Amino acid sequence: MRDRPATMLLLHRPVVLGLRQAFRSTPSRLCIQTCSTNDSLQPQHPIRNFSGDNCSTRGWKVMGTLLGLGAVLAYHDHRCRAAQKPPHMYTKEEVSSHRSPETGIWVTLGCEVFDVTEFVDLHPGGPSKLILAAGGPLEPFWALYDFHNQPHVRELLAKYKIGDLSPEDNVSPTLETSDPYADDPKRHPALKVNSQRPFNAEPPLELLTETYITPNPIFFTRNHLPVPNLDPDTYRLHVVGAPGHPSLCLSLDDLCKFPKHEITVTLQCAGNRRSEMMQIKEVKGLGWRTGAISTACWAGARLCDVLAQAGHQLSDTEAHVCFEGLDCDSTGTAYGASIPLARALNPEAEVLLAYEMNGQPLPRDHGFPVRVVVPGVVGARHVKWLGRVSVEADESHSHWQRRDYKGFCPSVDWDTVDFDSAPSIQELPVQSAITEPRDGETIESGDVTVKGYAWSGGGRAVIRVDVSLDGGLTWQAAELDGEEQRPRKAWAWRLWQLQAPVPAGQKELNIVCKAVDDSYNVQPDTVAPIWNLRGVLSNAWHRVRVRVAP
Amino acid sequence: MRDRPATMLLLHRPVVLGLRQAFRSTPSRLCIQTCSTNDSLQPQHPIRNFSGDNCSTRGWKVMGTLLGLGAVLAYHDHRCRAAQKPPHMYTKEEVSSHRSPETGIWVTLGCEVFDVTEFVDLHPGGPSKLILAAGGPLEPFWALYDFHNQPHVRELLAKYKIGDLSPEDNVSPTLETSDPYADDPKRHPALKVNSQRPFNAEPPLELLTETYITPNPIFFTRNHLPVPNLDPDTYRLHVVGAPGHPSLCLSLDDLCKFPKHEITVTLQCAGNRRSEMMQIKEVKGLGWRTGAISTACWAGARLCDVLAQAGHQLSDTEAHVCFEGLDCDSTGTAYGASIPLARALNPEAEVLLAYEMNGQPLPRDHGFPVRVVVPGVVGARHVKWLGRVSVEADESHSHWQRRDYKGFCPSVDWDTVDFDSAPSIQELPVQSAITEPRDGETIESGDVTVKGYAWSGGGRAVIRVDVSLDGGLTWQAAELDGEEQRPRKAWAWRLWQLQAPVPAGQKELNIVCKAVDDSYNVQPDTVAPIWNLRGVLSNAWHRVRVRVAP
Repeated sequence: MRDRPATMLLLHRPVVLGLRQAFRSTPSRLCIQTCSTNDSLQPQHPIRNFSGDNCSTRGWKVMGTLLGLGAVLAYHDHRCRAAQKPPHMYTKEEVSSHRSPETGIWVTLGCEVFDVTEFVDLHPGGPSKLILAAGGPLEPFWALYDFHNQPHVRELLAKYKIGDLSPEDNVSPTLETSDPYADDPKRHPALKVNSQRPFNAEPPLELLTETYITPNPIFFTRNHLPVPNLDPDTYRLHVVGAPGHPSLCLSLDDLCKFPKHEITVTLQCAGNRRSEMMQIKEVKGLGWRTGAISTACWAGARLCDVLAQAGHQLSDTEAHVCFEGLDCDSTGTAYGASIPLARALNPEAEVLLAYEMNGQPLPRDHGFPVRVVVPGVVGARHVKWLGRVSVEADESHSHWQRRDYKGFCPSVDWDTVDFDSAPSIQELPVQSAITEPRDGETIESGDVTVKGYAWSGGGRAVIRVDVSLDGGLTWQAAELDGEEQRPRKAWAWRLWQLQAPVPAGQKELNIVCKAVDDSYNVQPDTVAPIWNLRGVLSNAWHRVRVRVAP
Repeated sequence: MRDRPATMLLLHRPVVLGLRQAFRSTPSRLCIQTCSTNDSLQPQHPIRNFSGDNCSTRGWKVMGTLLGLGAVLAYHDHRCRAAQKPPHMYTKEEVSSHRSPETGIWVTLGCEVFDVTEFVDLHPGGPSKLILAAGGPLEPFWALYDFHNQPHVRELLAKYKIGDLSPEDNVSPTLETSDPYADDPKRHPALKVNSQRPFNAEPPLELLTETYITPNPIFFTRNHLPVPNLDPDTYRLHVVGAPGHPSLCLSLDDLCKFPKHEITVTLQCAGNRRSEMMQIKEVKGLGWRTGAISTACWAGARLCDVLAQAGHQLSDTEAHVCFEGLDCDSTGTAYGASIPLARALNPEAEVLLAYEMNGQPLPRDHGFPVRVVVPGVVGARHVKWLGRVSVEADESHSHWQRRDYKGFCPSVDWDTVDFDSAPSIQELPVQSAITEPRDGETIESGDVTVKGYAWSGGGRAVIRVDVSLDGGLTWQAAELDGEEQRPRKAWAWRLWQLQAPVPAGQKELNIVCKAVDDSYNVQPDTVAPIWNLRGVLSNAWHRVRVRVAP
């Protein structure tokens, strides 16, 4: 490594500006290239020095496109620097023969070779995702999951370095990957973006509870992968038939021939309000504020009708309906999730294969042409761009079913977590949040109006929202807006408000809300005792501090 | 009043001892007599002076039996004492003509007459109960509901005094009432009694979680009325038929001909752990500790099968199955409750008409010969000594369905409560408590073993119990004992335990537990924010402080 010359360019100001502009234009094709690292490379993560907009890794890749050099993915190996002897050399062929736990699992990044056999089970994204890269380069996967391009990830990887690619295999392999997100739809500018690739965004607080039904363009978006661009005419939904029954291959028209069922359902991401957990201790996940929740009127075929047509009925043993999306990563692995068969077949549970959202065809970001809607259940099971439905003895083997979207004791960390020990999140717990006034706002003395939303999983109706202006010492019941909901089918949120006099002489209000559902479940008082390593299920009392104008 | 002589005896020590002994023998027939009150009566509540066992009012009545005097139910009217003019005199006939809101509602206690028209709607036991006494004496009702015989109740009543009974009606009417509780069964001496009449008791903490199945004799008992003594040979269950279907009149044998269904179900009173709420602020209700919960294996006919035979099926509109017990007060009003028809008819909800408890015929205290068991639902709906089942458009009109067993915002008091504003409790929220070590205990240093129970309503399984030894700062997941439960039918509790080292140098442990159910609902951190005027739904973290032996 030390013997090879640095190919890193000195970055002059005009180049930096060019990079910034390049980044600002929406991504088109990116060329990700291998690199050689060099001890003299300064600064160690130079991109931090010229990208103030927190998009360093994208800028990095764009730089590759611009400069067309082989020195782009700079990677600093502390361990190798410390070692005095030259690194061992491996051929591509050798690397590619290490693709299983038996042979060992090797990967490359740039010119470097890593034996990650022991890390596979620790991979936060799940072993299966890392195994997909076994025997070859990491770059195509990191291009898909942007967040890998961070110093701490590289540092972690460094521990597993076993050598370098031999020079003949290291000569400009120029791996080109098309940007899998290039075809993502345009989004509404009001959305607060938590991640561009995959796209994750929430409506701004100002609009979140302005209307009972969230307008489609600002409905919160939680994508795990690039948005597929599907042709409604050739779209087919594959429903695996029960034993002795033929499978169904349904066009959109076929699906529309089933009785059309329409219900208003609130969807919430398990990560809603994760940002509050992040304030307690670091978690892995996007920093959703209070907006990873929205409500729409969905229409489609009932899943129970479709399953019945494929010959499925309740079994004596527990079974699961597995869904696969048509969104997939570069290796063809699709998003997947499952729900219990008992819920899927229960007409009262009203699980939909939805093709309409608020009277419109589904927007692309929300699963066009068909998505699952599972009322009362965590958003992660509402599989979008639905391609395949099957009934299985076990839950979906998808990473997102088995290695994500589960809750743990606050003491569990990434070294001790056993994902098999916790059930996958299905029904969500009772939740509420304040949308008005906003944290840090200054309000007039006199009366204060507090507004927000409240919702609970499993069709449990919100029966009360208590609001405190003094941090939880005294409480008043808020007014619940809108109509009562159907018993056992309270799938949608209640908006609420409270108008109350600001206590005289008060300079600050510590406003708190908490909801009660019809099983009389309540929200916990504080965040820390429900903290978990993935930052899901954040439903402690919501707190907002405001100043009172003198 | 001042004109009539005091008939109160001076109480000498031998008499007091005799009273104590008389009380200790189980109650037989009591003679409750009218009294004349007198300003010179000292002390004002003399019974407090000679009864140290907190059974003052019973001792009071027993004294009446012993002494045969008309001076027993001493009642001190502060207002009348203040007024200088003699009280207005009313005849019994006049009093008895005031039995409705139109005429005014009058009652008597001893020789005094009260116009309680305005109090009727404020009556904590519900207006209907008080109206039963309209136009006559309160004593027969107070004999049934012991807790009325308290100074604050008499003080409240004093505000409504309008005069005295005329002397001719006041001359030794000697109202005799048989003790409605005389025929109650014998109970196990281990039970911790919260009220004798009606009988309410919980297993002692030492035995509560010794076994997964609670032995029948120490299963917690929550009676609202005297225990009926029913003959299994003549017992009949009346099931009102659906329109166009004959009603059923089922003997115990008939009921046993339905398929026998057996399930293990935990019952919990809504008032479990009320004593913790009482520490925050006074509530109306018995001071249950952590033992108003027990588990049994119940067997019987499924309610859905019986309802189907009576022609009932699901209706498009919401309907309710109303249950009436054969336990009733002296006016014939039976205990009653209802559950939604949808639950009753759902075979998966497994609602039972149970005639066996842990392989035995039901004990009398638990509903012999037949009671309802509604898995996952508050104890109050598991109607005992079941007499009648009907399907109605509305919930049961029983006091216990409509004017009790509901939760409210902490700010709601008896002046502001609107019982119609809250739904009747059905499914209960997630709950857990520590049974070992006991609060205040001294433990050895080294390892500490913490044990307890956890349960949730609605068939939601307990998936985790977190235990803290430092008041909630850090947590460890406890071990859940026993088998996993059936999905959606986790009707019974999980016992749990944690063995953990006592942190070195610690002089005291502040042990806390909290459970999580499979909807990821959790318990709230503290009691005060869930305090409610009836002291129900007390499910905050359970806390136990122990000293560590040096």
